[in-house]
Amino acid sequence: MKQGLPIVISAPSGTGKGTVISILMKQLQHAFYSISCTTRSPRPKEKEGVNYYFIDRSDFESRIQKGLMLEYNEYVGNLYGTPKKETDEKLAAGIDVIFELDVNGAMHLQESMPGAVLIMIMPPDYPSLEARLRGRGTDTDEVIAGRMQTSLQEIQFFSRYHYFVVNETGKPDQAAKEIMNIIEAERHKTARYPDYTNKFIKE
Amino acid sequence: MKQGLPIVISAPSGTGKGTVISILMKQLQHAFYSISCTTRSPRPKEKEGVNYYFIDRSDFESRIQKGLMLEYNEYVGNLYGTPKKETDEKLAAGIDVIFELDVNGAMHLQESMPGAVLIMIMPPDYPSLEARLRGRGTDTDEVIAGRMQTSLQEIQFFSRYHYFVVNETGKPDQAAKEIMNIIEAERHKTARYPDYTNKFIKE
Repeated sequence: MKQGLPIVISAPSGTGKGTVISILMKQLQHAFYSISCTTRSPRPKEKEGVNYYFIDRSDFESRIQKGLMLEYNEYVGNLYGTPKKETDEKLAAGIDVIFELDVNGAMHLQESMPGAVLIMIMPPDYPSLEARLRGRGTDTDEVIAGRMQTSLQEIQFFSRYHYFVVNETGKPDQAAKEIMNIIEAERHKTARYPDYTNKFIKE
Repeated sequence: MKQGLPIVISAPSGTGKGTVISILMKQLQHAFYSISCTTRSPRPKEKEGVNYYFIDRSDFESRIQKGLMLEYNEYVGNLYGTPKKETDEKLAAGIDVIFELDVNGAMHLQESMPGAVLIMIMPPDYPSLEARLRGRGTDTDEVIAGRMQTSLQEIQFFSRYHYFVVNETGKPDQAAKEIMNIIEAERHKTARYPDYTNKFIKE
């Protein structure tokens, strides 16, 4: 039985990751999207077991204690983490698992899963990133500058990822297709098939 | 200017590499196929500058002395080698270069070009490999056993390659497409773009 591929996808703020990943998940026929746990409250339209598993802090901490979290992280006073059991089961069953994580989550996950493939979705360039962060123009320059700073800090993790794809303006389909290609190529890595040549021993 | 990718393709004897590579070269629009030098005589239908550069031994040895060979190898009394100058020029101009090499040539090339991507085309399994090596059934069992042994020795290099694709019987198009995918994915490796994040420094 062949193991599934663990695939981590991150993107600096303002890169439009959500659209790319939703196109990708529709096209990947057998992949599993890993749903994170969080202690923050659901936002309007967010659904339990779709966007997140919403759990309270004592439950989250007890899961950490029991080794049930593949990685976790605290952000603005809330805990976020990746449940270990369901992703382990999918991978063991040969199903690829997509982890949508921020740069910290990606680095943590790689420590516990050295075989993970790390892909960063990148904005095309500085001006288009700024334009996207400006959004509908209802935020102050200070707020936008803060977002820009966060985004540029995330971009500094570029070389810690194995691959990158550029989310060109208006072309999320292309970025999704490039990620599909990367996943397909990774399935052809010899390192993932240590026993492959056994097929060529005559019985 | 982005460097071209050096791509090495090998295959154990009897794998049907020729067909796959000819389909691949038609589909890759801007790639360059590296033509080797050899001291052996041309076979019928082989053309100078298409299949090989046919040169004599003293010329070949003088090229080695002058550092004009990227790698070379002696096989059954003849020298085979990869000219350095034209491939270096293509790569510097951003053109991908395909090197069709045997396992020894591939290992040598990797030493002088550590960034090369090594792909092995594999036969589907033992019985189909044997069937292909039997070919038209005009050879003795001893000859076939000899070919099989060579092929199995080459297969032992599997894990020294980065990627493999299986040339399923009757589906060389699929193997060529998988190689295209691998090349496309390799273009998205962050390691190939050490200065990429400079785009995000505000001037």
